[in-house]
Amino acid sequence: MRGAVLHGPRDVRFEDRPDPEIIQPTDAIVKMAATCVCGSDLWPYRGLNPVAAPSPIGHEYCGTVEEVGRGVTSIKRGQFVIGSFFASDNTCPHCRAGYQTSCQHREPVLGAQAPYLRVPLADGTLVATRDVPSDDVIPSLLALSDVMGTGWFAAEAANVKPGMTVAVVGDGAVGLLGVLSAKQMGAERIIAMSRHAARQQLARDFGATDIVTERGDDGIARIKELTKGVGADAVLECVGTQESMMQAIRSTRPGGGVGYVGVPHGVELKGQELFYMHVRLFGGPAPVRRYLPHLIDLTLNGTIRPGKVFDLALPLAQVAEGYRAMDERRAIKSLLRP
Amino acid sequence: MRGAVLHGPRDVRFEDRPDPEIIQPTDAIVKMAATCVCGSDLWPYRGLNPVAAPSPIGHEYCGTVEEVGRGVTSIKRGQFVIGSFFASDNTCPHCRAGYQTSCQHREPVLGAQAPYLRVPLADGTLVATRDVPSDDVIPSLLALSDVMGTGWFAAEAANVKPGMTVAVVGDGAVGLLGVLSAKQMGAERIIAMSRHAARQQLARDFGATDIVTERGDDGIARIKELTKGVGADAVLECVGTQESMMQAIRSTRPGGGVGYVGVPHGVELKGQELFYMHVRLFGGPAPVRRYLPHLIDLTLNGTIRPGKVFDLALPLAQVAEGYRAMDERRAIKSLLRP
Repeated sequence: MRGAVLHGPRDVRFEDRPDPEIIQPTDAIVKMAATCVCGSDLWPYRGLNPVAAPSPIGHEYCGTVEEVGRGVTSIKRGQFVIGSFFASDNTCPHCRAGYQTSCQHREPVLGAQAPYLRVPLADGTLVATRDVPSDDVIPSLLALSDVMGTGWFAAEAANVKPGMTVAVVGDGAVGLLGVLSAKQMGAERIIAMSRHAARQQLARDFGATDIVTERGDDGIARIKELTKGVGADAVLECVGTQESMMQAIRSTRPGGGVGYVGVPHGVELKGQELFYMHVRLFGGPAPVRRYLPHLIDLTLNGTIRPGKVFDLALPLAQVAEGYRAMDERRAIKSLLRP
Repeated sequence: MRGAVLHGPRDVRFEDRPDPEIIQPTDAIVKMAATCVCGSDLWPYRGLNPVAAPSPIGHEYCGTVEEVGRGVTSIKRGQFVIGSFFASDNTCPHCRAGYQTSCQHREPVLGAQAPYLRVPLADGTLVATRDVPSDDVIPSLLALSDVMGTGWFAAEAANVKPGMTVAVVGDGAVGLLGVLSAKQMGAERIIAMSRHAARQQLARDFGATDIVTERGDDGIARIKELTKGVGADAVLECVGTQESMMQAIRSTRPGGGVGYVGVPHGVELKGQELFYMHVRLFGGPAPVRRYLPHLIDLTLNGTIRPGKVFDLALPLAQVAEGYRAMDERRAIKSLLRP
């Protein structure tokens, strides 16, 4: 088959790769309905994470089960499935507590920007829909594989409750879906931080009530102004830089929460500042597996349409353009169809 | 009057100081029933916080109201009162949300190791008991002014719930009262980290079920061993060093919480490690004012006896010995009677 391989900074190639095979008896092979490029793929793409050797890339997926190993009992050939970017057994104590991305046997899912994908721990990782869904809902189901669940976790980790004022730092797909999640959780006021017209519009479509274009100290001052000097009850950090993290922490009221889901790059927090801010911090890789059944329901019954974050759809062969468009912020998120 | 003044590292003197006076109309003057030395007083005492000029010291207090300013309406002369180490108006949005130590008008209370103390924002800061309490309960009421409320906040911030396994890092008065708090909140298993026989005993008296004497990586390994490799559901960080903070974070299960109340000294947290730990972090200066009514009830009805942390009682004139005994870990906490 041909799939995406990252060779180095800004060098993604669509090239021959071996067809994935069952390696462990708990594996499944999924035939991709659609895949996409993640904001976190841009870290190595931009050379901010080292790339040692040419690496198959991509970790968001949904599609039809093509084959299962002999140890797979609940997932069947022909089912339409969605899974998380971390495979998990869904039975260990961390999984049972709802933190499948900290599964004692977790494995990253790699190389999803391809027509076929090997998914380890298939029974624990994959969630099947009742029927094979129609084509129009595929982008929204694909979004559940990472970005929608990640936005949801950001809101949950920030402790969003009905009636709250919520701020969202980051206007990528995760930030925008954080807005959608906060809305679903009953937030009354949702402040999206964005200076990009199309993203502002999508944020409003998803439930944002206010847009703040300022950043850093000015952004913090603006949030304080909008909240009568108090700060937001909950802030979703969806970027992962020192600036975005401090912006999130300093925009939060004492006793409020920051949910952080942007993979931190060079972030260092000073204990003493944190201490006197009185801000709750929680985050990490979103336990997407926990949310999948609920988010699949919300998607299939039309309550949410997270697939709206895909504003560019390309054939998989044009994966390199999918990366370029996101890198240059011409696209929010690129959908790829094999 | 004569009170404690810190002149420099390990130089606390009992010397003449001006009698405190009403400065703001919202002030009260409290005649001290008892005061004490706090673990956090040891930071400047040990020279780890700079001491620019001779400074009146001490911030824990209870006693009888001697005088109130003309703006004080609810607190009356002759009442027995306890207050927090931060004065707060108890009416601003942060106070109403329960974070009085982040009050928009907060002021530190300073110079409590003395026979008389000026307390700013008396109506918001002080809580009066119904009657003047008997002498034997004074140490326990004094403990509510800081250490008991701080241990309570550590447990609340770590999200302690009935049935949980809780670990406590730090065997000072706050850590020991964190054990007591976790017990009150229904923790089933409480692991106290201590290598000091008298403190281990008091931890057991307060509800500890296990004692861990190892520190650092060995301490973390021991907690993991005691929890079948999972980690504690909640960890109370009651020290404030880099080592204790990392020990707390790394002993916590994914999805669990760390409540940190030791004032951080040189603590720096790496965002990426925190991200993959999946640990909730919350802490800061304990909102003692919020807890005072409840903790006064628990103390007066005999449910808790936090005053047991005082294992040394001295006349105020011997304040220097009170510091020395704690610095050398000969005493857990020194009570001072004017």
